[in-house]
Amino acid sequence: MSSEIGKALKISVFGQSHGRAIGVVVDGLPAGLRLDEEALYGFMCRRKPGTSRLSTQRKEDDRPVFLSGLVDGVTAGSPLCAVIENGDTRSGDYAGLTDLPRPSHADYTAKMRYGEAVDMRGSGHFSGRLTAPLCIAGGVAKQILESKGIYVGAHLLSVERERDEPFPLHPTKELFDAVARKPIPVLSDAAGERMAQAVEAARAEADSVGGVIECAAVGLPAGLGSPIFDGIENRLAAALFGVPAVKGVEFGAGFEAATMRGSRHNDPYIVENGKIRTAKNDAGGIIGGITTGMPLVLKCAMKPTPSIGRPQQSVRLSTMEPEELTVKGRHDPCVAIRAVPVIEAVTAFTLLDILLEEQGYGND
Amino acid sequence: MSSEIGKALKISVFGQSHGRAIGVVVDGLPAGLRLDEEALYGFMCRRKPGTSRLSTQRKEDDRPVFLSGLVDGVTAGSPLCAVIENGDTRSGDYAGLTDLPRPSHADYTAKMRYGEAVDMRGSGHFSGRLTAPLCIAGGVAKQILESKGIYVGAHLLSVERERDEPFPLHPTKELFDAVARKPIPVLSDAAGERMAQAVEAARAEADSVGGVIECAAVGLPAGLGSPIFDGIENRLAAALFGVPAVKGVEFGAGFEAATMRGSRHNDPYIVENGKIRTAKNDAGGIIGGITTGMPLVLKCAMKPTPSIGRPQQSVRLSTMEPEELTVKGRHDPCVAIRAVPVIEAVTAFTLLDILLEEQGYGND
Amino acid sequence: MSSEIGKALKISVFGQSHGRAIGVVVDGLPAGLRLDEEALYGFMCRRKPGTSRLSTQRKEDDRPVFLSGLVDGVTAGSPLCAVIENGDTRSGDYAGLTDLPRPSHADYTAKMRYGEAVDMRGSGHFSGRLTAPLCIAGGVAKQILESKGIYVGAHLLSVERERDEPFPLHPTKELFDAVARKPIPVLSDAAGERMAQAVEAARAEADSVGGVIECAAVGLPAGLGSPIFDGIENRLAAALFGVPAVKGVEFGAGFEAATMRGSRHNDPYIVENGKIRTAKNDAGGIIGGITTGMPLVLKCAMKPTPSIGRPQQSVRLSTMEPEELTVKGRHDPCVAIRAVPVIEAVTAFTLLDILLEEQGYGND
Amino acid sequence: MSSEIGKALKISVFGQSHGRAIGVVVDGLPAGLRLDEEALYGFMCRRKPGTSRLSTQRKEDDRPVFLSGLVDGVTAGSPLCAVIENGDTRSGDYAGLTDLPRPSHADYTAKMRYGEAVDMRGSGHFSGRLTAPLCIAGGVAKQILESKGIYVGAHLLSVERERDEPFPLHPTKELFDAVARKPIPVLSDAAGERMAQAVEAARAEADSVGGVIECAAVGLPAGLGSPIFDGIENRLAAALFGVPAVKGVEFGAGFEAATMRGSRHNDPYIVENGKIRTAKNDAGGIIGGITTGMPLVLKCAMKPTPSIGRPQQSVRLSTMEPEELTVKGRHDPCVAIRAVPVIEAVTAFTLLDILLEEQGYGND
Repeated sequence: MSSEIGKALKISVFGQSHGRAIGVVVDGLPAGLRLDEEALYGFMCRRKPGTSRLSTQRKEDDRPVFLSGLVDGVTAGSPLCAVIENGDTRSGDYAGLTDLPRPSHADYTAKMRYGEAVDMRGSGHFSGRLTAPLCIAGGVAKQILESKGIYVGAHLLSVERERDEPFPLHPTKELFDAVARKPIPVLSDAAGERMAQAVEAARAEADSVGGVIECAAVGLPAGLGSPIFDGIENRLAAALFGVPAVKGVEFGAGFEAATMRGSRHNDPYIVENGKIRTAKNDAGGIIGGITTGMPLVLKCAMKPTPSIGRPQQSVRLSTMEPEELTVKGRHDPCVAIRAVPVIEAVTAFTLLDILLEEQGYGND
Repeated sequence: MSSEIGKALKISVFGQSHGRAIGVVVDGLPAGLRLDEEALYGFMCRRKPGTSRLSTQRKEDDRPVFLSGLVDGVTAGSPLCAVIENGDTRSGDYAGLTDLPRPSHADYTAKMRYGEAVDMRGSGHFSGRLTAPLCIAGGVAKQILESKGIYVGAHLLSVERERDEPFPLHPTKELFDAVARKPIPVLSDAAGERMAQAVEAARAEADSVGGVIECAAVGLPAGLGSPIFDGIENRLAAALFGVPAVKGVEFGAGFEAATMRGSRHNDPYIVENGKIRTAKNDAGGIIGGITTGMPLVLKCAMKPTPSIGRPQQSVRLSTMEPEELTVKGRHDPCVAIRAVPVIEAVTAFTLLDILLEEQGYGND
Repeated sequence: MSSEIGKALKISVFGQSHGRAIGVVVDGLPAGLRLDEEALYGFMCRRKPGTSRLSTQRKEDDRPVFLSGLVDGVTAGSPLCAVIENGDTRSGDYAGLTDLPRPSHADYTAKMRYGEAVDMRGSGHFSGRLTAPLCIAGGVAKQILESKGIYVGAHLLSVERERDEPFPLHPTKELFDAVARKPIPVLSDAAGERMAQAVEAARAEADSVGGVIECAAVGLPAGLGSPIFDGIENRLAAALFGVPAVKGVEFGAGFEAATMRGSRHNDPYIVENGKIRTAKNDAGGIIGGITTGMPLVLKCAMKPTPSIGRPQQSVRLSTMEPEELTVKGRHDPCVAIRAVPVIEAVTAFTLLDILLEEQGYGND
Repeated sequence: MSSEIGKALKISVFGQSHGRAIGVVVDGLPAGLRLDEEALYGFMCRRKPGTSRLSTQRKEDDRPVFLSGLVDGVTAGSPLCAVIENGDTRSGDYAGLTDLPRPSHADYTAKMRYGEAVDMRGSGHFSGRLTAPLCIAGGVAKQILESKGIYVGAHLLSVERERDEPFPLHPTKELFDAVARKPIPVLSDAAGERMAQAVEAARAEADSVGGVIECAAVGLPAGLGSPIFDGIENRLAAALFGVPAVKGVEFGAGFEAATMRGSRHNDPYIVENGKIRTAKNDAGGIIGGITTGMPLVLKCAMKPTPSIGRPQQSVRLSTMEPEELTVKGRHDPCVAIRAVPVIEAVTAFTLLDILLEEQGYGND
């Protein structure tokens, strides 16, 4: 009742950080699509830790093994299951955390939900490591979307108070690719450098920082989605809040729209190359839950990593006595950086789900 | 595939603005609960238009008729269906809007989704009028939650650039009730006055304004919810984006969290009256998708009403020629005001759904 | 959590037998389809009681009123809600049944499920009267399927020990229509006469009889459905057991298949008019959960009406003392007769749901 | 959209017969339950092939490996994933079957559904081998049910025309255990011997036979389930038709009920040991979709194995020419024998799903 989502395309994520393996079942993929496993692995490497000073030093190989659903790299129609074995784990670092919960971490709530038997070694099923299976599902979805001319890309819009430029009105695949190749995925390298400094400064103080990720999808047809509860925004938000640390999701102008007058917010219709477009895109490509045909644009607020190396106030649950806590272990000072491909992944598989509903399985 | 949501409690909304009736089916309510129909109607009146200069002058009575699910005011276990007849409608005002779509309104996307047969008289199924059935479902849910000691309240946090105070750390039922009685639901009457002026100024210029609604729920137990895709945030966001004009949803510090360091954002655990609490609540009462036992706090960004009386640029779809459009008809200059009880309603029935899952039907 | 089904097409049934109204919401119908309301009403009349000595004498008009989803008889894309007001009800007949439950009727189980507040007047939400909304949904679905060349028909295969002929290998729309026009829907009028006598004999003894309904759908494409849990059989069975009194569902040879050898049961492939067919159809048109393109054939076992006028043994729940019970009120001696169009209806809307998933909403 | 089922407990099956591995994700298990892995393996051995002359000679070890959800044999609350590597596969036996489809096998329908890319080696995802993951999920569910005093058992009620005795009115755990230990799971050993002879006779003629499985669950509380579409019968049938070869499902008297009068079919209420019981159980423990508290009894019709060694008529799809086909490979002459624990398994996890909904996750 927790780790499954989707209608035409069902995603079921499993695994704990320090268990035997993590993985994902993707049920509903069309048959006959060739998967580029190297491209998928390249995509997954974008979230891999250990690639720079700015992320956790935990070593992960994260190359998925496909147990089902593929024959010679081609989808067979049956559910795809991919797993990643858990290798380098140091459970000792986490001993006792369920009795002395880390502030703003799931230690306490997980215990209240599941009781003593919950596995919180390495944060268990709540770990950021579970975003690797999301990237498998999303990486596969991205390839299928690309075969239909739909491209999904994302960048780090801000870290703490440092801001990148927003995406242009019509971002391109080339822009997405260029951003994806950078160690810090931004449009403006100068902004990226300032962000790196902000992260470094936090890390030097055993602290962490939050950030905002902007994600866009181009090439979507108009008329996709539904009103009320089955709109594009509902479906994407329902999935995106599944990414650990996401605390806000907005589309188009989002919270900024709340400060606007209608005369400024409304997007005038125009004709461009014989097609209906809008002169700007404060709607983020969605009106009434349905795509306009303009780029879909969303932003996710990522909270700062709760695991910080500074002393924090907690309570020992067995005694109900206050106690200071200093978290040990290896942690990203800024999860937002590695979360960029994760947001792309979740956006991609949700859009593919929506698209498969619209197209039906009889057309593939 | 569009207007239905929920797991243990299923909400199915139906109706078009200018059709015969609008309504809702609520399936999964526990049996044996006495419904206070007057209190429900009082709740619904909070979203009723025509009560002040600040909202549309359309007259609606909006008193729901219960077709099923209640016997002498007590829930019978079977699905509750309530309808509201559509009375005062002026379809003439909307003729031709599907060929000359209103900017940032669902006219164009609805036509792309459903074709020529879509009913966009009064915005059809996309109308803000469909929030009345949401209020029926939510008003019923609020009463059931209250019987369990759980209270949901909301206020207008901002209109354009005018801001109310945020909720205190521990809002109370009394505070919720006091806010609900005001014509503009705010904590600070001075802020309410400034907001009223902002709305009035926009209306005088045939324009509209957006706003932010803050909603809180107190009395929820800790340990409610699940990680990954079935968390409290996922469920609430999936429902809240069903309210027309919502363009962003955030929990706790939300987007502000993205500007923070972990040392500031993390909520220290404390003991209060023998219970685990946090000293502040930037988590908004949810960590890892699961309740902490602190008040649940969320904010919704409401875009400005797209229907404004000023000339706007559109395209005549039948000729693909640009054409200026001036929207006629009766429209709220600020939908955020009347949306306050709607956000409460959607929050309430989603929380009741989550709670019924946690408690099971065998316990009621 | 009880009265809703479907994926691309969601059916939500509401109402109690002696409440204000019963009805259905059908969400996901394609837009732009003209509904023949007279044909729909004609279909509904096939289940209407009071038309012969063989059914209950309760008078029902059962003409549905459409509250939403239709504009001038054409589907608008938004959810269709149709209701039937409850008129001629005599609640007095049922007083006290929840303390002295009728054998094999839902009185006892409903009370155990919902407690004292359950509405069992006229059997409440458990009443056969709730099959009228099923017929609305199914009657609409039948019309849409017919526009795609898919026809659904059913007949009474047996009553007690009297048997009709089975459908031929390739039943036609004309056959379905001819059967539907008969007061007892059978292929062989002689069999129908024997069945009428069996029903009459039971009625004369204040007793009731069961029966079997055979239902077929012709014109379905091959390749519809999915293996394991989302097959045609799974979906149809899940819906058909929603019809009160159904105690068994089988496809093709069904239970007879269990007595066969493979060499007899297997359906040889042949080519007919350039198409793949099978020489016989013990598979009932479904292999591996997926349609073969042959007629889909299923049978439903209907138990005898539990409400009989003869004294029966029960227990007074308040005292736990045995007590004899004689059911009063108006009851069909053979619900299977009026259930024939209901089985068609449920089959039709389930097949339409499956077809809409296969075709997607983008193609309509 | 195919291989996933469940509400409070979600089962997602994956794998192809000749792929790398098969497996299952079970999401929603309560935390803190100790799993007896040896007992689970013992249960799975009951469906293991190669144990007698009467089943396929394919060797399978089928010992599941748990990738997630368990810590030291105790459920952790997070999704449980278990896999079985595919070892002894001989794909050569199946080459070319998609162009010359085996009668009554999924070869043709799978190709029509998924196209050329479908993996039908060893019948792929349609293989009876996929019942092993069902047994993992069901074996786990059985242990949890047993901890609540609920026992599920099944036996072979008939093979071809040979019949075992039905279960007694109140079957016991001891009876279930005794039946489970027999090579052919029957009540009457004499019946088992006749069945063995029938299977042997079919095998000697390169043929196969069908059979009926009776399954019962004892210890269920009254009041479990819901009317209309979410009844016990709907849920069980939706799952049971997921077992390959099931062509009919009935509850209690089932199709026999259709031949009865109400006076014979109705189950009189009695008091036994201070509890409400029925004097007989033609309802199969379910009335109005809700449990009565009597044993739940269902029967599944299993068609004869379609893969037989005798020449059969088919069509070569590439040329549309008739062609005789003789299936090679190792096949059970009677899948019903090995399906007995599979039916138990599917019944068990469906009942656990229903029970978890009724109890809620907050109570465990």
